[in-house]
Amino acid sequence: MSRGHVDILDAGKAAKITWADGQTARFHAIWLRDNALDPKTRSAGNGQRLITILDISPETTIRAASVGQDGSIHVTFAPDGHETTFPAEWLRARIYDRDLEAGEGWLPPEITRWDDGLQNAVPVGSYNAVRQQPAALRDWLASVRRYGFAVLTDVPTTSGSLCDVAELFGYVRETNYGRWFEVRAEVNPTNLAYTNLGLQAHTDNPYRDPVPTLQLLSCLENTVDGGESMVVDGFMVAERLRQENPRGFALLANCPARFEYAGSSGVRLRSKRPFIELGPDGELIAIRFNNRSAAPIVDVPFDDMADYYAAYRRFAEILEDPKMEVTFKLSPGELFIVDNTRVMHARKSFSGSGNRWLQGCYADKDGLLSTLAALEETTLREAAE
Amino acid sequence: MSRGHVDILDAGKAAKITWADGQTARFHAIWLRDNALDPKTRSAGNGQRLITILDISPETTIRAASVGQDGSIHVTFAPDGHETTFPAEWLRARIYDRDLEAGEGWLPPEITRWDDGLQNAVPVGSYNAVRQQPAALRDWLASVRRYGFAVLTDVPTTSGSLCDVAELFGYVRETNYGRWFEVRAEVNPTNLAYTNLGLQAHTDNPYRDPVPTLQLLSCLENTVDGGESMVVDGFMVAERLRQENPRGFALLANCPARFEYAGSSGVRLRSKRPFIELGPDGELIAIRFNNRSAAPIVDVPFDDMADYYAAYRRFAEILEDPKMEVTFKLSPGELFIVDNTRVMHARKSFSGSGNRWLQGCYADKDGLLSTLAALEETTLREAAE
Repeated sequence: MSRGHVDILDAGKAAKITWADGQTARFHAIWLRDNALDPKTRSAGNGQRLITILDISPETTIRAASVGQDGSIHVTFAPDGHETTFPAEWLRARIYDRDLEAGEGWLPPEITRWDDGLQNAVPVGSYNAVRQQPAALRDWLASVRRYGFAVLTDVPTTSGSLCDVAELFGYVRETNYGRWFEVRAEVNPTNLAYTNLGLQAHTDNPYRDPVPTLQLLSCLENTVDGGESMVVDGFMVAERLRQENPRGFALLANCPARFEYAGSSGVRLRSKRPFIELGPDGELIAIRFNNRSAAPIVDVPFDDMADYYAAYRRFAEILEDPKMEVTFKLSPGELFIVDNTRVMHARKSFSGSGNRWLQGCYADKDGLLSTLAALEETTLREAAE
Repeated sequence: MSRGHVDILDAGKAAKITWADGQTARFHAIWLRDNALDPKTRSAGNGQRLITILDISPETTIRAASVGQDGSIHVTFAPDGHETTFPAEWLRARIYDRDLEAGEGWLPPEITRWDDGLQNAVPVGSYNAVRQQPAALRDWLASVRRYGFAVLTDVPTTSGSLCDVAELFGYVRETNYGRWFEVRAEVNPTNLAYTNLGLQAHTDNPYRDPVPTLQLLSCLENTVDGGESMVVDGFMVAERLRQENPRGFALLANCPARFEYAGSSGVRLRSKRPFIELGPDGELIAIRFNNRSAAPIVDVPFDDMADYYAAYRRFAEILEDPKMEVTFKLSPGELFIVDNTRVMHARKSFSGSGNRWLQGCYADKDGLLSTLAALEETTLREAAE
């Protein structure tokens, strides 16, 4: 069997690689030089690139290239004569010579949208397990990545213990609400969260930029009537809107909204971000939705405002559709975490003679996803040993 | 003199207000109802909205509207009969019936781009002043908002005191580098920042999402030859690129880049965000640029990759143009803060027998801008009293 071959294209400005299994991909000389993995290009110790784009000649071409026995690609560049080798799997995982068109609102494969079908399969972990067993922590974090929320049981009901949960995978994001905050009915509340009112499904703190990307809510006491927690997948709401009304989806994505919070002295938080945030390639990356802190919308053309409001209303109707919601009532020692850029959470109103005492804190996804990726790598390595 | 008048449009779906000075603006009935300021709509205590979009009839129209003596607008809605009044200045500051087209890469008026012309007007504050005088703190924070960086003198040279500076206006963002971190030459560094190498102008941690939006670097010791700090306005670099090469600007804005950091055990940080980030309305909102952690770019079509790299190179050439840089050498007790979504910072290489000991920490702009807005409001109120 042939080990494959490389065709030099365009006087060496690019090359077309054909691997033994028939897969082909073109790469530019400048891309290959920039991404070389050898210790003159990347620090062997920490993997960081040692050169800048200005260290690479703009005239860089591929002088010679060949496929090794193992599918690796050996390249010699001109004019600097630099030689480097790319492992086959490394290069094949980074092919950009492919169809990149994906339409608006697409999601990567590690994310699964959900509706009330998840009611009987709520992702749950146990604090005792996740803090002691890396595989249990990995699985719990992977649920958060896939579904945007998860429940945790067996959490100590001591005040502030939700911060210990956050520190299993990342770091608490302190805000004007403190390192963590009490969620219970108060007289003269600075925030409607601190009442017994029901709260429409929402993301937290959209008036903050950057928004806290994770929220944890833990239960210390819950003997009231009502007060159930609900979660709704904002990515599913956005997708239903897109299918029903592509223009409405585009208006909510392409016109910034505004959010404000000025409920306490010395605090004047404001942001300008759309309800539906897309990356420049159309990837659905965030939802911001909160009736309490939505400020006047002033970045929508007059002629589009009626349709914008119709889309806003329809978004709210979809998120209040019971078919979209997963509901649970937290007991003391239970906590849930939400991806606050995706999953909206709600609370039913409550009354009665008991008490409802929750604590909340914020954290960020960078730490969670980093810890998860490192745990997955360890698992893969152990499986291979 | 006439006090102005209101014309009901489109069977009450909108109204055109004409104020006494001739200014006119149209508003939709649904927008006015949603943004009513009365205590049935907004909490008088904390300003949060008490209703959701679903509490407003989709058939909402303006039954009657009039202009008061003071220019305020009184509106009666149908079908619910709700009545509310908008102060003239509140409504005039939120007119959306206007030309919203601004082109790609525009900036709001509170931001001023700069180049080496700022070398002799570096914004500087004194820690003793900013921690004691609200007006000094306001002015220092306003410099950060306008220029994206500022220097602070008279900072105690005790370890960790930079966190006290961050807490004057916001909150430290803890990361895998700690609550704060040491920046000095190390053996076996986990990050090239911890060497005596020069570092190309960069934003920090672009492999993190959300990126830390502020960085503070304080100096405890600096007796080496070299090691100067430089700052470059990334918004100015982007603007020069846009003027020279609109297609290159669009490629860097419209194609995501990738960033990675895996320099320490248990850490696998990855992000996918463009070098130049625009809001959906074309506002320039962030720059991410770091040669050390730039990962292979795989979201650019093959046919655009050569032009993408040419734009990337040109961006780097502009940022290394001495006309773009402001340079200073920190002395012990001096600190600088940068808006890490805008201003790139660099370090010249250093050598010699002395020591260079800096400490760094991250914080976020939400807190800074909130504190600034509150200070500005207080100042305005005091000026009016």
